[in-house]
Amino acid sequence: MNVAAPVLEPGATIGILGSGQLGRMLALAAARLGFRCHIFAPDRDSPAFDVVRESTRADYDDEQALARFAENVDVVTYEFENIPAETAAFLAPLVPVLPDPKVLATTQDRVAEKDFILGLGIGTAPYAAVATAAELSDALDRIGRPAVLKTRRFGYDGKGQAAITKEIAPEAAWREVGAQPSILEAFVPFAREVSVVAARAADGRVECFDLTENEHRDHILKVSRVPAAVSDATAHEARRIAETIAHRFGYVGVLAVEMFVLRDGALLVNEIAPRVHNSGHWTLDGASVSQFEQHIRAVAGWPLAKPIRKGRVEMTNLIGHEVDDYRKWLIIPGTAVHLYGKIAVRPGRKMGHVTRLFAD
Amino acid sequence: MNVAAPVLEPGATIGILGSGQLGRMLALAAARLGFRCHIFAPDRDSPAFDVVRESTRADYDDEQALARFAENVDVVTYEFENIPAETAAFLAPLVPVLPDPKVLATTQDRVAEKDFILGLGIGTAPYAAVATAAELSDALDRIGRPAVLKTRRFGYDGKGQAAITKEIAPEAAWREVGAQPSILEAFVPFAREVSVVAARAADGRVECFDLTENEHRDHILKVSRVPAAVSDATAHEARRIAETIAHRFGYVGVLAVEMFVLRDGALLVNEIAPRVHNSGHWTLDGASVSQFEQHIRAVAGWPLAKPIRKGRVEMTNLIGHEVDDYRKWLIIPGTAVHLYGKIAVRPGRKMGHVTRLFAD
Repeated sequence: MNVAAPVLEPGATIGILGSGQLGRMLALAAARLGFRCHIFAPDRDSPAFDVVRESTRADYDDEQALARFAENVDVVTYEFENIPAETAAFLAPLVPVLPDPKVLATTQDRVAEKDFILGLGIGTAPYAAVATAAELSDALDRIGRPAVLKTRRFGYDGKGQAAITKEIAPEAAWREVGAQPSILEAFVPFAREVSVVAARAADGRVECFDLTENEHRDHILKVSRVPAAVSDATAHEARRIAETIAHRFGYVGVLAVEMFVLRDGALLVNEIAPRVHNSGHWTLDGASVSQFEQHIRAVAGWPLAKPIRKGRVEMTNLIGHEVDDYRKWLIIPGTAVHLYGKIAVRPGRKMGHVTRLFAD
Repeated sequence: MNVAAPVLEPGATIGILGSGQLGRMLALAAARLGFRCHIFAPDRDSPAFDVVRESTRADYDDEQALARFAENVDVVTYEFENIPAETAAFLAPLVPVLPDPKVLATTQDRVAEKDFILGLGIGTAPYAAVATAAELSDALDRIGRPAVLKTRRFGYDGKGQAAITKEIAPEAAWREVGAQPSILEAFVPFAREVSVVAARAADGRVECFDLTENEHRDHILKVSRVPAAVSDATAHEARRIAETIAHRFGYVGVLAVEMFVLRDGALLVNEIAPRVHNSGHWTLDGASVSQFEQHIRAVAGWPLAKPIRKGRVEMTNLIGHEVDDYRKWLIIPGTAVHLYGKIAVRPGRKMGHVTRLFAD
């Protein structure tokens, strides 16, 4: 049994599982609204710990630490969708956990996620669950090449993925993803990648940010541009898809739906992220309310704001040593620089982002 | 001897003396740029403590605590101009303190401040230093009535002030301000109250935000509107005055200069605040860079940003129990709500503010 979602008063404490830049930006947004945050995470080099008074550094299976955490917060949310299901299950009887942990069960498993999406009548790339190298061979015969093999669980930023082109032997791809339960997805010749960042309140109201177009490099988001260069009909349909998903989950908080736009304007859902999302970082500077504030409003039982975009926006991630160039960005007029306070610079690590605002 | 101002790297720690909402908003702006903050203040119900990992609750004359604080930060700044001069003097040989504490010696004494302004050839209301009730009577004969008697030191939000109209006996006003060294100022029949919030970097570059028009209620700022309804010539002159003051101080950081606009457009300086200022809160939502970020950039040795205003802006303070209405503001489109996380609601206490943005 889960605890009913509360309506928080200013001064209440929001517990956040996960301590990366998303947790950090959630905590900063919560502070603006008069809330305190308590961060719970196992990691040492953790940007979110620096912006809160109370934090717990403990493993996600440390039940004593979790119980103390639950006692000291008024609601729990997460910045990170790979929170162990057991952690959420342990907390849910003690304190409201939003969005509902059952969402994680779906989104942590790429096959369950795709089944869920298809069940809503929404398109995805053709896919098949594969549990053995032999099943992979069969699936490749049905789905064709090129295709992408991905682990069912715990993949992000391209980790746990293998492209299967003509030359690649199924066995090699199977080894590359670690010979574990996986999903084979057809490669879709898309025209664009887009995402909808949507907030849903407990009362069922949904507010979507404008459709964002995303450019990846080495499987990591590099640039987001708003508005996306698609027809009004496509933008409208993308929003409808995100709303449908949010409603079916009974979702409370912010989620992101990544989609492919095909050459004819049709949309296929690629992935659901049950959390604030990198492709929504532009909202901090480019909209009248940010994705982080919308999430905090939703989990606090507060009304959502109606987002108003302030212009044409371009968000660029600073990845790895690109962050060393931050001074270049500081002096470009109309550019907002965000640095995450991470200590170690590693290739592929998201160290910050910059947002540029232009007249529409 | 003061320590030379450094150029900080992301991850460095900025020490902030004072723990009110200004310290809180400075710390939030610093976090965005990848800095950590360490708050030092004696108060218990302190909004800034909630948004930093490290804080010291100690008196401003606790030299042991100050020495430890100096060891743990890379630069010290303040959110509060009534920091004891001895505190700044104790810290300055140990760690860079910006803006230079000598500014406090001038701005903490209303007579020294007015002398400084006049010395720059900038107008003020007629004034006289008074040290006894007899001196007050003499000064009233010269300056006339109505006039305002203010303590030389430690006044804010109308505290330590007495209006002297025709009916008021000088002795009564003298008692009302506590029979302490004071300044008598002529009452100026002004048309408007305005302020310039200006940032100056160590290299001498100054960036001013657009002139702001301020409406007070019971001596407390109630509404700020930008742009101020004055001629371009007056706005230009206001900016020149602020720049002149900032340069003469060799100022590093953000300061605010409050001025009266007379009916003919002439300007008289009322007060200098050597810190971020309530009349600059609109910049958080209404400009491409906030006063808080400009201050952090300046004390970190980083380049200032060129502020671009995003529209017509109106900032309203939520004072005392007005904060109870926060839900009303949450649902007005284009309105940003800021709550300071203060526990006790007291009459006259600034509990939050809201910013509304309109097309220019």
